[in-house]
Amino acid sequence: MASNMYLFWGSGSVPCWKPMIALEEKGFGGYPNKLVSFSKKEHKAEDVMKLNPRGQVPTFKDGDIVVNESAAICDYLERRYGNQGTQLIPSDVKEQANVLQRMYEVSNVEGNILKELVYYIFHTKKEEQDEALLKEKYEKGRTELQIWEGYMQKMGSGAFIASKSFSMADVYFFPYLAFFVRLGLNLSKYPALSEYYNRIKDRASVKNSWPPHWAEEPSKADFMKNI
Amino acid sequence: MASNMYLFWGSGSVPCWKPMIALEEKGFGGYPNKLVSFSKKEHKAEDVMKLNPRGQVPTFKDGDIVVNESAAICDYLERRYGNQGTQLIPSDVKEQANVLQRMYEVSNVEGNILKELVYYIFHTKKEEQDEALLKEKYEKGRTELQIWEGYMQKMGSGAFIASKSFSMADVYFFPYLAFFVRLGLNLSKYPALSEYYNRIKDRASVKNSWPPHWAEEPSKADFMKNI
Repeated sequence: MASNMYLFWGSGSVPCWKPMIALEEKGFGGYPNKLVSFSKKEHKAEDVMKLNPRGQVPTFKDGDIVVNESAAICDYLERRYGNQGTQLIPSDVKEQANVLQRMYEVSNVEGNILKELVYYIFHTKKEEQDEALLKEKYEKGRTELQIWEGYMQKMGSGAFIASKSFSMADVYFFPYLAFFVRLGLNLSKYPALSEYYNRIKDRASVKNSWPPHWAEEPSKADFMKNI
Repeated sequence: MASNMYLFWGSGSVPCWKPMIALEEKGFGGYPNKLVSFSKKEHKAEDVMKLNPRGQVPTFKDGDIVVNESAAICDYLERRYGNQGTQLIPSDVKEQANVLQRMYEVSNVEGNILKELVYYIFHTKKEEQDEALLKEKYEKGRTELQIWEGYMQKMGSGAFIASKSFSMADVYFFPYLAFFVRLGLNLSKYPALSEYYNRIKDRASVKNSWPPHWAEEPSKADFMKNI
């Protein structure tokens, strides 16, 4: 079935990595795909725009069905291919509710760390960065990370971010954590997340979808060591 | 069953309104609830914090299950009570994919209109607003609205934003549209959205959950008339 699928994606993009992990978990590894170059603006090229007029990746197609939003692709895959590969949304009502809660709660990681802190540093010249504001942003990011450290401590060693099994909450959360580690995050301050990170990074679905340029080039930034 | 449920909510909050429409559609109208006052910081009070340490609304509980993220509550309700009330995620694969795509695509309305434009005007003193930047933001917001006007035109009169029936995509989209209308949006420039708005605002689930202070007080702002 995977031969009917097609994914346009960018290396290192969290929204792309999420459905790529889901595709691997559902047993669709080896699906046809195109790695687009952001610097060459290939996400605005005709082959993408034809399927996704917003000119964004991920852009995904399964036969004649087109789904482009990162979370929509994940949701679609699990609903359509629920019985295949890893079950990413548990059936047990209580466990399911916890997975849903954590999945959507990841938007706080995006808001409080990625947009608030990482984008500020990426988009503000060093000499224009406001030191007091930056300190506040690091503090806010630290508080957010500590919330997730607390969740992981509560789940216990060997468990996953929202359940005893690997779930959609891990698909949503792990790419952010890995991105922060790439940007210098020192996990020794977050022992439960450290154990989690070191275990998940070797999971087949994650290894097979690891951003290729991360494996090839060192990161140019390491400011997340300050968090 | 609704008597086991409890919702903390704020009037006029889009994240609160979404699960409130879903609750009504699933047949849980009349669920126990508390309207919290943001200005009195009641979302940081003990009864909320006990269930939701982030101190945010919506905060929702169904028996001993606590789910707090807006989209997580909607997702939880439809998964757990799928056979009850309105079916919010269609079963047909193609229709389902379109509903999922539009549901998550609403994040662009949040990003390109609410955060980019509405929050800029809310949080920037009039004399500090940059006219060229503001013009750019209006243009970006207009482009976003036109995308949804296009979707609605394609769906055809009498249909809904992503399917022939009312779906979760309407639950996610309508509260934003209504908020923009409250802020002065002139729908005569968007005829398909205008027909949609006037039909959905009278839907029982929407009327029953309409932000009470909107009904009581006129809006202080009407800048969305410029979009």
